[in-house]
Amino acid sequence: MPSVTFTTTPAPVLPSRGTLRPLGLNEVRITGGFWGRRQELNHDATLTHIGNRLESEGWLSNFDLAAAGMLPQGRRGAVFADSEVYKYLEALAWEIARSGSERLEGTFRSIVTRVAAAQEPDGYLNTSVGRTGQIPRWSDLEWGHELYCLGHLFQAAVARVRTRPDADDGLVQIARRAADLVCEVFGNGGIESVCGHPVVEVGLVELGRALTTQRYAHQARLFIERRGRRTLNDIEWSRKYFQDDVSVRDTEVLHGHAVRANYLAAGAVDVAIETGDEELLASLRQQWSHTIARRTYLTGGQGSHHQDEAFGEDWELPSDRAYSETCAGIGSIMFSWRLLLASGEPVYADLIERTLYNVVAAALSRDGRSFYYTNTLHQRVPGTPADPDRTWPRASSSLRAPWFEVSCCPPNIARTLASLDAYVASVNGDGVQLHQYAPAEVRTHLEDGQSVQFDVDTVYPENGRVLITIRSDSSQPWNLSLRVPAWAYGTRLRVQTTDGESEEKTVEPGIVSVRRAFRAGDHVELTLPMQPRISKPDPRIDAIRQCVAIERGPLVLAVESVDLATSDDVSAVAIDLRSQPHERDGRVWISLRIGHDSDRDWPYGTPDGATAERAAEVPLIPYYDRANRGLSTMRIWLPVLEPC
Amino acid sequence: MPSVTFTTTPAPVLPSRGTLRPLGLNEVRITGGFWGRRQELNHDATLTHIGNRLESEGWLSNFDLAAAGMLPQGRRGAVFADSEVYKYLEALAWEIARSGSERLEGTFRSIVTRVAAAQEPDGYLNTSVGRTGQIPRWSDLEWGHELYCLGHLFQAAVARVRTRPDADDGLVQIARRAADLVCEVFGNGGIESVCGHPVVEVGLVELGRALTTQRYAHQARLFIERRGRRTLNDIEWSRKYFQDDVSVRDTEVLHGHAVRANYLAAGAVDVAIETGDEELLASLRQQWSHTIARRTYLTGGQGSHHQDEAFGEDWELPSDRAYSETCAGIGSIMFSWRLLLASGEPVYADLIERTLYNVVAAALSRDGRSFYYTNTLHQRVPGTPADPDRTWPRASSSLRAPWFEVSCCPPNIARTLASLDAYVASVNGDGVQLHQYAPAEVRTHLEDGQSVQFDVDTVYPENGRVLITIRSDSSQPWNLSLRVPAWAYGTRLRVQTTDGESEEKTVEPGIVSVRRAFRAGDHVELTLPMQPRISKPDPRIDAIRQCVAIERGPLVLAVESVDLATSDDVSAVAIDLRSQPHERDGRVWISLRIGHDSDRDWPYGTPDGATAERAAEVPLIPYYDRANRGLSTMRIWLPVLEPC
Repeated sequence: MPSVTFTTTPAPVLPSRGTLRPLGLNEVRITGGFWGRRQELNHDATLTHIGNRLESEGWLSNFDLAAAGMLPQGRRGAVFADSEVYKYLEALAWEIARSGSERLEGTFRSIVTRVAAAQEPDGYLNTSVGRTGQIPRWSDLEWGHELYCLGHLFQAAVARVRTRPDADDGLVQIARRAADLVCEVFGNGGIESVCGHPVVEVGLVELGRALTTQRYAHQARLFIERRGRRTLNDIEWSRKYFQDDVSVRDTEVLHGHAVRANYLAAGAVDVAIETGDEELLASLRQQWSHTIARRTYLTGGQGSHHQDEAFGEDWELPSDRAYSETCAGIGSIMFSWRLLLASGEPVYADLIERTLYNVVAAALSRDGRSFYYTNTLHQRVPGTPADPDRTWPRASSSLRAPWFEVSCCPPNIARTLASLDAYVASVNGDGVQLHQYAPAEVRTHLEDGQSVQFDVDTVYPENGRVLITIRSDSSQPWNLSLRVPAWAYGTRLRVQTTDGESEEKTVEPGIVSVRRAFRAGDHVELTLPMQPRISKPDPRIDAIRQCVAIERGPLVLAVESVDLATSDDVSAVAIDLRSQPHERDGRVWISLRIGHDSDRDWPYGTPDGATAERAAEVPLIPYYDRANRGLSTMRIWLPVLEPC
Repeated sequence: MPSVTFTTTPAPVLPSRGTLRPLGLNEVRITGGFWGRRQELNHDATLTHIGNRLESEGWLSNFDLAAAGMLPQGRRGAVFADSEVYKYLEALAWEIARSGSERLEGTFRSIVTRVAAAQEPDGYLNTSVGRTGQIPRWSDLEWGHELYCLGHLFQAAVARVRTRPDADDGLVQIARRAADLVCEVFGNGGIESVCGHPVVEVGLVELGRALTTQRYAHQARLFIERRGRRTLNDIEWSRKYFQDDVSVRDTEVLHGHAVRANYLAAGAVDVAIETGDEELLASLRQQWSHTIARRTYLTGGQGSHHQDEAFGEDWELPSDRAYSETCAGIGSIMFSWRLLLASGEPVYADLIERTLYNVVAAALSRDGRSFYYTNTLHQRVPGTPADPDRTWPRASSSLRAPWFEVSCCPPNIARTLASLDAYVASVNGDGVQLHQYAPAEVRTHLEDGQSVQFDVDTVYPENGRVLITIRSDSSQPWNLSLRVPAWAYGTRLRVQTTDGESEEKTVEPGIVSVRRAFRAGDHVELTLPMQPRISKPDPRIDAIRQCVAIERGPLVLAVESVDLATSDDVSAVAIDLRSQPHERDGRVWISLRIGHDSDRDWPYGTPDGATAERAAEVPLIPYYDRANRGLSTMRIWLPVLEPC
């Protein structure tokens, strides 16, 4: 544990009520493994990379120019560039708490000073709006992103006040003044509209929780209630794009821009929780279920339109044109985590796990310095490498790119990794719930004040064994609840106590609880089945008809052209299911039939017999590790070889 | 035949050399049938509708404002709105020739007067560029569309000069002055770049042919040769979008924006023909073949990206997100027609036929007053009807819309229908080639001066019988060449002469020729097989794996939800191929299994057994006739019921 002392719970989401209570970074700590390595990479490489880019792109200097009264000349970046600085601050705040780094603390303070200098006397803060030569304040709610930027500012301030409540850097004051202005301008009797890009809602509710004021949640409720009243102007893709087509309460499924939809839904859960609005909460749970059942990729990715970065219709889930924006995945985690805390149901943690491994981890390169903005499930052409000195449009290469003109994803990944410990476990009156499996230390108290301490040892998802060693003696029994993922049929649970008791049994997917007055040294061991699984899609998902995907534990696997013969790509392969996928040398192998190009003049009609094919045993890669061996083609869904 | 006398051939494309010589509207005339009805609709409804919209949208008034020196205030429409006026003029010019309408002649002259008044002394003509408060001339070649607009002006002038060569309206002079300016500004030593949207190339070559000057073809050659030299600025979708990524000569397949790609290719054929550039021509034929083999929908539609209205990669042909822009279909016809004239090969006429029936005809409503901009192959949701008083974004309803903010398609359909007669037949030294089957009169001369006259009677594609009756006596034998479409296995040819000779045989797809010294009253009858065909896709087209489509003659068929039970849509149907598609009451019927929704929480994994299904005999509709019976869902590709 870092030496920081916390007077509030240092966690990203702290609902005032709910089934589960989140733990702070002072109560649960990832100590290594898959996610620990990525947290170290975030610390060592990604955060520095982001800071350098924010400087070299001039997005930080925008604040200096604002303070010097020199805007709009020289302002650089998109209208929402301020938000990337705030997400970076949020990431730093969590990482400072996680690591205790004084270097990062210095960076943090220096940036806050620059941001502070740009704030106007009435609390307004935005480098692209309001000055002579810029659009007037709040005059372009559709695209101006002013409230969006402030939403991220509020989240950064929340991270800070929860991890360094006594810090004198001033970020919390900046946020409070801006939030008060938002309430004045957009409160009852003010501008009766909303921001084209939701996120201010989660920011306001969390800031209100952190500063113990009702005012901000009240304002967030106004924004949620106003949404869908068509107060935003119509656009080419219709108001559906920014969820202003139908009220949040009456929404049946997430739709429109996928990041906006998830951020809005997360904010709406926060509002429902703070206002005790069970009807709204039930609607949001239904929306989540419909979205998962019909509009989500196997990877957990969401959004199937490039044009408007949006959800498609039900069953419209093309692999090759999957947008699956990294930020939409993070938004989905935000939404799911809130529903998990509210309900305690493991389906939400299942989706979080899937999305973490197959969207968030997949977006980040091995060196932590390049990123996917979109996460396709089928890479048809090798493309060209991203020039490390260039800033890229959103989605233009088969390889990750170091930075984007719209660079929302890199700092979003950074803040997620820096606060990831908080998503591992929770407590309630009965005990502790373990949601995600990583090597970790948990040191917390139950509601009755009883201290609970245990360690988690695992190399999951490399294998499925998760060993929990209790480190504290309890006088009263408590529940240790473990999530058994929906795919984990045949999971084994073993309990071995210091007094020689031992029990082992097969448990069903869902939640398994061990209730006892644990003693230090007691062991609880969960063994999740990690043999490769063959997954078939619902027949209504037209894009992947007659295909299967191979999964292993929480990992979606893929075939990458670098594992085929030189001349082959993945366009004409079929999996031969007569031989089962099997593990060898730490990889999963499958039998492929690889066809050779035999073009007809016209690709429709009566097929002219079998094409030449050869068989090959081919290893799969975890999808998250794609595009780390040079240019390649890749696919997750494999056509099934038709019986001869 | 109209009473107009032609001194030049009134046809849209007149190459100076080639395998086939096109016929003018004075030589071939469609007299009714499928296309004749649509030409009447164009005359009676569509042209009036377009004229009204050009007025009510203010796109015509832009010219008045320009003439009055009152721009840029009050200018309306997109930067390329001028081009819609020019395409409308082109449509009117062809339609005046086809119909002899004095009313349309009056409309034509009145518009030309307004356009003429807006032309600047040096020949420059554009209502959105060059004035104080507008961007300077030629300063935004990527998006300014100045040369694009002029390309359409040139095509309108070509239509006029070829159909009313002695008219005193002045359009030809307007075009000549503008073309001369283009040559000065963009000639050798001038601006060494190209327009972001090709079309000036075809316009220049055709204008040069019509006015018998080499200068314009020379300028077109410069534009073709400069393309791919990256003289345009890069954009988010890369220079591939406007084909400035690789030279035309080195291009392997059409790519980027599908309309741009086809217009450019058509212009490049024109340049290759005029300059005798066999290498360029061979490259274009190869590009066409690759595009047809891997990047074209069953309907002939092209373009599978909504984001950039562009071609996808090879095999990336999603049905539900098919863009298949109407204008891309028309561009493809322009490209194909030029290659047909150059080579005489029937594959080009095959694609023209497919695209005419399944893109151009499909885009137009039964009343001729609403249009599809995009032509999806799978309509997943019924959507909402288009408000007839509203101008629509490009592609937002399941029903056709009366007008679009980008309204390139309506006048493009109009000019195509008005000049369609010219695509029916051609001549060469040996005889006459019939490319498209419609009731028609052909009255022409062979190269040796011999008069050839015949009529075509048919209700094709209602049935497959095409009866040709010779109306002139020939002293010398000549070839009557008939295209047998690639799908038409089992076609019968019967020759019955006035002197009692009779022959009947089965002919192969390709071209069948009857050579004789025909006498008036001789009959040649072609009977194309019209029983429904089951077409299967290349397995590399992932989006339609394990699906079939039903075609009948040149028509692609579709299932529409209005033919299903009330509660059904097309998302969960499968075709049962144990019973063959069959005709009854003039419709094609298939056996469908219709599933009932049975959502799982997560749509991937091990399917949990069969879903409830019922069988139904369902009639198909021709795709072109979709969405004419109210809101509906629709699909062309039908999943094949898996064997039990």
